[in-house]
Amino acid sequence: MNKVNVREAFEKVNGYWNPTVAGALNGQEVKLVKFKGPFTWHHHDNEDELFYVVKGSFVMEMRDQNITLHEGDFLVVPKGVEHRPNADEEVWVMLFEPATTLNTGNTENEFTKHRLDRL
Amino acid sequence: MNKVNVREAFEKVNGYWNPTVAGALNGQEVKLVKFKGPFTWHHHDNEDELFYVVKGSFVMEMRDQNITLHEGDFLVVPKGVEHRPNADEEVWVMLFEPATTLNTGNTENEFTKHRLDRL
Repeated sequence: MNKVNVREAFEKVNGYWNPTVAGALNGQEVKLVKFKGPFTWHHHDNEDELFYVVKGSFVMEMRDQNITLHEGDFLVVPKGVEHRPNADEEVWVMLFEPATTLNTGNTENEFTKHRLDRL
Repeated sequence: MNKVNVREAFEKVNGYWNPTVAGALNGQEVKLVKFKGPFTWHHHDNEDELFYVVKGSFVMEMRDQNITLHEGDFLVVPKGVEHRPNADEEVWVMLFEPATTLNTGNTENEFTKHRLDRL
């Protein structure tokens, strides 16, 4: 059993849009992701996703609204809701979601990560 | 769907050892708790618990080790592991755990909260 310092752990995360598993519990995982630029539009059929901003800010684009998240904010995107994170500058985001969650949800493209890095 | 600023949300949390639900996803909940002093020794038979320190620091006492957590650190306490949070000074802790988790686990005493406040 080890504690994780989230900011130190982010220093070990390689590249953008690369969810890196930092913890696991109850079938869920804590994933650290650096966002930069626009991601891909997608939704998750079965998983709600929590986004918590550790550093920076980004816009969660959805079909009916955009929500700007700043450091210390979190947002839960329910399953089925189409979304696209978009970050003008690099932002560090901690995700909490089921371990089964595929990062690009119902889509598959150059962003898709079937196997995740682990700290 | 609303974003939550965690530090602002903590301003609305009443008292110590009073888990206040700030979000829900996949049968899990985000609970905000202010710790001060020693809690009660307990374990959870079926739930792993994640503790993330938003402000301050505390010691997670366990039977075989103590782990000091500072701002920005998280720790997962697996089910079955007896533990007691202990905070010299007020500390703000964000929990991720199944919604079913009773705060005092296998014990019941003056700390037990069967019904939780919600933001």
